[in-house]
Amino acid sequence: MASVTGLAELSSSKCFGGWQKRFSHPSNVLNCDMQFSVYIPPVAGKDIKLPILYWLSGLTCNDENFVLKAGAQKVAAELGIMIVIPDTSPRGEDVPDAEDGAYDLGVGAGFYVNATQAPWDTHYHMYDYIVSELPELIQKEFRVKSKAAISGHSMGGHGALIIALSNVKHFTSVSAFAPIVSPSDCQWGQKAFSQYLGNDQSEWGQYDSCALMRQQGQFLQLPMLVDQGLDDNFFHPQKLSKPLEEIATELNYPAEFRYHAGYDHSYFFIASFIEDHLRFHAKYL
Amino acid sequence: MASVTGLAELSSSKCFGGWQKRFSHPSNVLNCDMQFSVYIPPVAGKDIKLPILYWLSGLTCNDENFVLKAGAQKVAAELGIMIVIPDTSPRGEDVPDAEDGAYDLGVGAGFYVNATQAPWDTHYHMYDYIVSELPELIQKEFRVKSKAAISGHSMGGHGALIIALSNVKHFTSVSAFAPIVSPSDCQWGQKAFSQYLGNDQSEWGQYDSCALMRQQGQFLQLPMLVDQGLDDNFFHPQKLSKPLEEIATELNYPAEFRYHAGYDHSYFFIASFIEDHLRFHAKYL
Repeated sequence: MASVTGLAELSSSKCFGGWQKRFSHPSNVLNCDMQFSVYIPPVAGKDIKLPILYWLSGLTCNDENFVLKAGAQKVAAELGIMIVIPDTSPRGEDVPDAEDGAYDLGVGAGFYVNATQAPWDTHYHMYDYIVSELPELIQKEFRVKSKAAISGHSMGGHGALIIALSNVKHFTSVSAFAPIVSPSDCQWGQKAFSQYLGNDQSEWGQYDSCALMRQQGQFLQLPMLVDQGLDDNFFHPQKLSKPLEEIATELNYPAEFRYHAGYDHSYFFIASFIEDHLRFHAKYL
Repeated sequence: MASVTGLAELSSSKCFGGWQKRFSHPSNVLNCDMQFSVYIPPVAGKDIKLPILYWLSGLTCNDENFVLKAGAQKVAAELGIMIVIPDTSPRGEDVPDAEDGAYDLGVGAGFYVNATQAPWDTHYHMYDYIVSELPELIQKEFRVKSKAAISGHSMGGHGALIIALSNVKHFTSVSAFAPIVSPSDCQWGQKAFSQYLGNDQSEWGQYDSCALMRQQGQFLQLPMLVDQGLDDNFFHPQKLSKPLEEIATELNYPAEFRYHAGYDHSYFFIASFIEDHLRFHAKYL
């Protein structure tokens, strides 16, 4: 299947009456070929525009982890929601990667920012890819609604939150699992941002959901749901979830934060609560 | 966690209120260390014996594929069923493998038989492992019912069917997804059986569900459910499902065979119908 956007179908499997598909396409923004996955619910093809949930994955993931491990298709089929799952960074032989092979920088760790520093600035523009290029492609290639929901896990929870808070007119609702909410103030974020954005921290706030919430939270009403496992090894060290809740509470922002005893950072945690997130977004889509 | 059986816990994640765990243990039958996974439903620990479903995976799989991809935990949690997922062959440096690295012989392809031919006969005793050693370990280490349900996919569907049909007193019910039902009469089975069992085909029938059904089907009443995707690339070439249905129908055996338009051989097919299998087994467990 070729198309005006260069979209090529790599695989397609029937799943809960709908279709789980994987595509590749040339990305101008990222300056490389990219792959993404979609779940298309059974209701597709009828005379309706599908509501979309964008799912942003975490460190080390590509577009397949959520597809294989989250078990979201059953409820997406029931609710008639299309799920679009992008990759987490540019990829390819020409794309720079962390010199020491670190999992938290470079390939698999795009952090959903537009890098301004060499060598990252030639490819690492995941913010523009998720905000503009991929949604424009999806709008061209599928019959979908213009506003979407967005969610993600860990680094992808960070991505979902910053993108939703900075582009509220594009989204109906936002949710996250164990999100990095304060990248300017945790090890993962500081390492990535200093590489991608440089050491001038005044450039970091545009990609920091705590900073965005503090600046704009009192003016915004975008519905927000955040789930956090209390046995998550990264919860305290990387300051996940909690700092954003504190600011949201202070500003009376309409967010629900839920903390779950015993759950860790894995996809078993996501699988356990993804149905709640889909039903949450379905109310607004 | 050490124990009389040498069981060691490798990982544990909370999942749908229960626990997804992975263990290793020394296997005397297989002459190597083995790993297996279990899902323990939330009701565990109360004063009841848990019902068990054994899940046998297909070619190339280990104990993790079903755990990560089938999405069975939600309904297992609801129904209070423990799921035990063994590996598909012996593993380790000393374990012989296919010389050409083939996916359908050797490691990842034990075919649930007791090999009698060199070099396979020192380790490849998956039949005894699944029928005896692993259930005895599970009975010692967990509070479980004595009779279990059994299911599997492809090569694992074959395993579930031959093991259930030859050990009806151990099982409440059997089910399978896209099972190899006639290994004596398809390429996968003939390749594996000639290697593991030798060329005397009179030795093959004990591991062939069509042969077992033809011999014993009229005397058996073990409930059986089989699902088959009609867009499964292996359906016709490997003679999956259909030959067993023909014999079962002839003998008036109480089996349900379901054929699903559009579904392939992947875990997306399994995920779409695993809930039906769990509810089927729950009626008898």
